[in-house]
Amino acid sequence: MIPLNQKLSPTVFRDRRNRLADLLEKKKLDGYFFSSPADLYYLTGFQSEGFYGLATGRGMWLFVSALLAGQVRESAPGCRLVMGKRLSLSVETLMKKFRFRRVGFDPDQLIYRLGDVLKKKGLVPSPNVLEELRIVKGVEELALLRRACRITAQTVADLIPRVRLGQTERELAWRVADQFHQRGAVGIGFDLIAAVGSNTALPHHIPGEARLAKGSPVLFDVGCRVGAYRSDLTRSFYYGKIPSIYRRVHAIVAAAQKAGMDQVKPGSTGGRVDGATRGVIHRAGYGKQFVHSTGHGVGIDIHEPPWMRPKNPGVLAPGMVLTVEPGIYLPGRFGVRIEDTLLVTADGHERLTVE
Amino acid sequence: MIPLNQKLSPTVFRDRRNRLADLLEKKKLDGYFFSSPADLYYLTGFQSEGFYGLATGRGMWLFVSALLAGQVRESAPGCRLVMGKRLSLSVETLMKKFRFRRVGFDPDQLIYRLGDVLKKKGLVPSPNVLEELRIVKGVEELALLRRACRITAQTVADLIPRVRLGQTERELAWRVADQFHQRGAVGIGFDLIAAVGSNTALPHHIPGEARLAKGSPVLFDVGCRVGAYRSDLTRSFYYGKIPSIYRRVHAIVAAAQKAGMDQVKPGSTGGRVDGATRGVIHRAGYGKQFVHSTGHGVGIDIHEPPWMRPKNPGVLAPGMVLTVEPGIYLPGRFGVRIEDTLLVTADGHERLTVE
Repeated sequence: MIPLNQKLSPTVFRDRRNRLADLLEKKKLDGYFFSSPADLYYLTGFQSEGFYGLATGRGMWLFVSALLAGQVRESAPGCRLVMGKRLSLSVETLMKKFRFRRVGFDPDQLIYRLGDVLKKKGLVPSPNVLEELRIVKGVEELALLRRACRITAQTVADLIPRVRLGQTERELAWRVADQFHQRGAVGIGFDLIAAVGSNTALPHHIPGEARLAKGSPVLFDVGCRVGAYRSDLTRSFYYGKIPSIYRRVHAIVAAAQKAGMDQVKPGSTGGRVDGATRGVIHRAGYGKQFVHSTGHGVGIDIHEPPWMRPKNPGVLAPGMVLTVEPGIYLPGRFGVRIEDTLLVTADGHERLTVE
Repeated sequence: MIPLNQKLSPTVFRDRRNRLADLLEKKKLDGYFFSSPADLYYLTGFQSEGFYGLATGRGMWLFVSALLAGQVRESAPGCRLVMGKRLSLSVETLMKKFRFRRVGFDPDQLIYRLGDVLKKKGLVPSPNVLEELRIVKGVEELALLRRACRITAQTVADLIPRVRLGQTERELAWRVADQFHQRGAVGIGFDLIAAVGSNTALPHHIPGEARLAKGSPVLFDVGCRVGAYRSDLTRSFYYGKIPSIYRRVHAIVAAAQKAGMDQVKPGSTGGRVDGATRGVIHRAGYGKQFVHSTGHGVGIDIHEPPWMRPKNPGVLAPGMVLTVEPGIYLPGRFGVRIEDTLLVTADGHERLTVE
């Protein structure tokens, strides 16, 4: 398979920085300090540890070590580089020189030591301004997300009928990763979950040496990465003659997922999607066995806004990409989770995790 | 290949918690709050986002969501679980109930928001007490590190003679990952680097669609994970007839690495190891082209103490595991880096990255 060009156009990053500058003005901020690799990738096309950025109406400054300077310069030609100086002093100098007064940082991303120093330099913890830009995906982002979701759906559909007695979880996870590569993904989107037997009842199970036995529940929760964008899909099934309890629980989760997906449309909210799945499971008597939230946004991060959580008032809009993934877990016995990644469209949603 | 049992004995985690309790007493701390997944794994055998711990002389409390409770309970039977309550309030309650006064947190690990709240509850940013325990590896840890290093060395030795014209960096990286799996590793130890052509001059290159051409430098910087423990190895070579400049630079880096490794022994320091490699490269006239530090510790984290950095006074002791990895980078042309992972022994060091 010929690999897709997985890079976004350089103009995409410049446009994002321009839109951010407009947003800062609207929010009456002189600037915003970024530390998360995903935010910095979104704005510059480059990501690494030890890489920071200050976005302002006067352009963007990037703080990097000499080690990374060449790569950053190539990736973000419109930005100014500050190299090899103490970060907090560099920020302070810029604050004074350009008389920046209101500059924010994200208290949920920055480490305490740096936040504490920057606060003393006059910066303020405040909501991440990039969230409202990142939450709605653009045309090029959607092409990558669509591709990542399709590769994932094709891989799982191909593997399920070929699962064999005696295979270990680690081997099953590896086969998923191998198909991701063969189908053109850059790599895995997160630590893949393959679980057999009672391990399916552990929502965050790490694949180990447990082997598929005759008559066993199986769960795949997997996703790949295409460019910087990820996908997320879960399928649960039974290997062997299906016990009636498994069949019943699987049907409840499937109905809950459908009810949740029906609420994925413009004007709906994360809380409404969560309420719809939770209601079905609660009414079936398994409310206490659904121990997590219904879903999350997917993009550069595998978990990002919007959040499908109880009472979340966040309104869904076209271009958002999110998961709906209810589950029922019976400890020591089995768990069932069903998850798809959806795109909110003008009049509802489109399921992206299709073959 | 039969996979090694990659789990540490349950008693290892209990012993670590006991040693930490002794250390807290020695340092006159009532407790220490942990937020980094690696620290929490070290103490409990479990790791996840959204999982926190408070270690005290009266035992360890773990703060988890209901989602993770089952797995945590199984993994860390000696700890007390606090579920579904607001973290800062739970910590405050414990502080009051047991009259804890001096409780620290790591300002380089905790996010600003949580650090700010905990500071208001009386906790203080202070050096991570676990560092001096984690920096010296125990017998079981060394078995996993040794295995990870050997798998990595075998994989690269096997692949180098089989590199072929036209292979992409992405494909080369994938072949490394595939061999890691075949040889029994859990997975990759970090984002693998495979670089060809002038991309070898970018120390943090991300493998892309560049293809191996006739007459090209090649660089692999790769490592795997066995259990929770990692390995790190870099090899640089030339595919085709070697130009004299490449041969010369490669010889300088090799001599620098040898000089650095000669300083890896008990009583030496990170600064001395760095100085030895840097001296060789500086005297050869390439000082400005060696744009990073000489090395780092390796364990649960791929980068952890001890640090081989200019002037670092940290003294090396038996049981520490670290890398020596000098490099010379000529932008637009090529780069050479050579790296091994070493164990400090009673009378010098042992190279772990051997076939």
